[in-house]
Amino acid sequence: MLSCVQLFFSLALCTLTAAAIAETERHSRPNVILLLGDGMDQQQLTIARNYLVGSDGMLVMDQLQSLSSVRVQTVAPTRPGRSVYVADSANTATTLATGIVTSKGRIAMDYRGTGELPTIVELARRAGYRTGIVTTSSVTDATAAAFATHSVHRKCEGPMDLPAAVDWYGAKIDCTAQAIERGGPGSIAHQLSSAGLEVLLGGGRRYFEQAAYGGEKRPLETALEHGYFVATDSDSLAEAPLQRPLLGLFAAVDMPVMWQGQSQRKAEAVTHSTASLAATSFPCVANPEAAAGPSLKTMTDKALAVLGRDPQQGFFLLVESASIDKQSHARNPCGHIGEVGQLEQALGSALDFAKQQPNTLILVTADHGHAAQIIPDRRSFSFGDKAFHSPGAVARVQTPEGSVMMINYATSVADDELHTGTNVPLLAEGPGADTIPAYLTQADIYRLMVRFLNLQ
Amino acid sequence: MLSCVQLFFSLALCTLTAAAIAETERHSRPNVILLLGDGMDQQQLTIARNYLVGSDGMLVMDQLQSLSSVRVQTVAPTRPGRSVYVADSANTATTLATGIVTSKGRIAMDYRGTGELPTIVELARRAGYRTGIVTTSSVTDATAAAFATHSVHRKCEGPMDLPAAVDWYGAKIDCTAQAIERGGPGSIAHQLSSAGLEVLLGGGRRYFEQAAYGGEKRPLETALEHGYFVATDSDSLAEAPLQRPLLGLFAAVDMPVMWQGQSQRKAEAVTHSTASLAATSFPCVANPEAAAGPSLKTMTDKALAVLGRDPQQGFFLLVESASIDKQSHARNPCGHIGEVGQLEQALGSALDFAKQQPNTLILVTADHGHAAQIIPDRRSFSFGDKAFHSPGAVARVQTPEGSVMMINYATSVADDELHTGTNVPLLAEGPGADTIPAYLTQADIYRLMVRFLNLQ
Repeated sequence: MLSCVQLFFSLALCTLTAAAIAETERHSRPNVILLLGDGMDQQQLTIARNYLVGSDGMLVMDQLQSLSSVRVQTVAPTRPGRSVYVADSANTATTLATGIVTSKGRIAMDYRGTGELPTIVELARRAGYRTGIVTTSSVTDATAAAFATHSVHRKCEGPMDLPAAVDWYGAKIDCTAQAIERGGPGSIAHQLSSAGLEVLLGGGRRYFEQAAYGGEKRPLETALEHGYFVATDSDSLAEAPLQRPLLGLFAAVDMPVMWQGQSQRKAEAVTHSTASLAATSFPCVANPEAAAGPSLKTMTDKALAVLGRDPQQGFFLLVESASIDKQSHARNPCGHIGEVGQLEQALGSALDFAKQQPNTLILVTADHGHAAQIIPDRRSFSFGDKAFHSPGAVARVQTPEGSVMMINYATSVADDELHTGTNVPLLAEGPGADTIPAYLTQADIYRLMVRFLNLQ
Repeated sequence: MLSCVQLFFSLALCTLTAAAIAETERHSRPNVILLLGDGMDQQQLTIARNYLVGSDGMLVMDQLQSLSSVRVQTVAPTRPGRSVYVADSANTATTLATGIVTSKGRIAMDYRGTGELPTIVELARRAGYRTGIVTTSSVTDATAAAFATHSVHRKCEGPMDLPAAVDWYGAKIDCTAQAIERGGPGSIAHQLSSAGLEVLLGGGRRYFEQAAYGGEKRPLETALEHGYFVATDSDSLAEAPLQRPLLGLFAAVDMPVMWQGQSQRKAEAVTHSTASLAATSFPCVANPEAAAGPSLKTMTDKALAVLGRDPQQGFFLLVESASIDKQSHARNPCGHIGEVGQLEQALGSALDFAKQQPNTLILVTADHGHAAQIIPDRRSFSFGDKAFHSPGAVARVQTPEGSVMMINYATSVADDELHTGTNVPLLAEGPGADTIPAYLTQADIYRLMVRFLNLQ
């Protein structure tokens, strides 16, 4: 155990490093790296922590300078003052990207879906910063889309969706007004292909290859006209030149997740009579479909190489681990644990980068809460004649430290679990991170980034 | 080799100590006020925030200096290295009070239930500090008990329990070895009556009035012998002199909660055919049983008047809002919202006190997570022929700002909802609060308090 005096001396060395870093800062513009775990609330983080590092371990996230609690805000589409207590990824990403609270499904549009809201990517570009988006979902999915495009609804992803989009309940959405031949900005894929991002990596090839709605070019053709180098696998991503704008489309829609349950097991519904089924535990194993990559870390490394090659320019980069949410929807614990693991690795890359360019603010947050909960593990689901199993679906996951974690999904009897309304965490590292208040809103995160980049 | 982050954490503890020492030199000893919301995780806080202050409001807790994420740790009773991922209030209070991780049900005892662990109340008393405990549950309940007594199991509350205690599943617990006539320390009530606390306020009169197990005195007689003034209602609490040790027993077991649902409605199970029942919303109303008081704030004010009357002495005070947990177990949203409200008011008193005695460290935390979740509000629970209601019980609570918050309880088909395994928040205000790291364990909270009071 070091004494307080020894500690002070050791910390002085850290401070010296900081002084050297300050010298570099005088000749560099600021960078913001925003890492977003979709659906990554405190339950999700704890589930992942228990598995990835065990009861005595700390995640990379746990070692950041500051933690805040972030209020998630949503309003009704008809009445802006009416609070809606559970969000979706579109309205929350809109708030993070624009500072404005809106209604579910909107992509950088106001609550009625009539007014476009300027995004931080647009403001940063205008101020001469490089910009990039990296995600494990389709790049046209809600989170990525809200940072660089505008759409009345998140489902207007590709040209074919404009006349044919439907919402979660099968109701038709009319996106035809935003079609290019009607003078609109086009589908989300079309807008992304000409948004001027230096880096755009993820899934979503399908939307970029779709035949256009009214005879105009496919989004991929537009991207090529704008000078993009197009990568389609790990090899072509590695070969991509740093000097050209880079579009990577590594899956038809979402990229495969890193992990799955052994024998592809997910949570299973429990009843008094099927207790034995759910009572068997299983570990997580690698998903062979993800072996070819690229991983979120590989994409992040490439993005940082492209965006950060010239410290005088500065950049804004969004890195999203999207399938934490999607795998919690699907009651797949190993799926979402592995995707928190991907975000951890990408954060490691961000922290390494910040050692080279210390004028980098790293923020890690989530858009909304999710269904999964850790509940007490019980091998039997009844005691005497009394049943006390979950009314939903549960998985008993074997953790590497030799215990069993029971995860409960019980927000809906349908195939799809629901988001929850909890506050989400914000973790921060970099200049000024220690001055971020303990409580803020998602709109405050937007303001914080805008101020750091001196955009307003 | 410690990393810079680890160094920073270690030095933060030095800084806390140094701050406390500096103040002591100015003739005031440090005070610690630990406020505990039982079961108060981020979902619980968000539920309460939405109701108490609305979408744009901030709780008193939200305005504190620092927020940390706290790891909750539990081990199996037979194998100390085996992690258990969901805790109870006994083992977590033991860790907060002693710095040692233990097994479920233990009251300041090691994981096997054989070794007593010294508590912060005992250490503080030995160092000349005043000590106090205030709770809305029976003062013999797990949280309060673990700070000042030792018991193999939390259920050994009164003399009559020693031969007759049963655990949650009806299994017999043998506490007879701790009976006074067998040379043991007695039931939890007996130990509390002679623990030397200057203030002990809450419910639990039943346990203090029980006829003794082996012919020894009732706990209440022991308390009177130790010079306690005994208050039994708001009036006698107000009249209690500041110079005498104060025991307040305001209910037979737990104190009544502040709020209830209109028409005493709680969450209701939903099925496809009963959707209409759960689809009606209700507001929270005052619980008439709680009108006579005292409230948690009133008890806290009195405790601070007794403990803080002489700044040269310093004190440790635990203030627990216990029924956040109990009302979430019972699927009563208005119940737990009102009890977060009680903790808010008590925190207000603590902050006011700290203005008079600034060498006061105020910590607000929780022991473990709980079942309640905010899920999307849907008036209908099916769309076409597809059902998507919760498999558990839901309540649609009308919020004062004019919206509806749907709360889901779905961890068990039995009468009683379960704890969950999420990390919990720590909020802090006072000297050194801004140096508390963003991530720590419950044992770290113990160490932080011990260092602030300069007890080791």
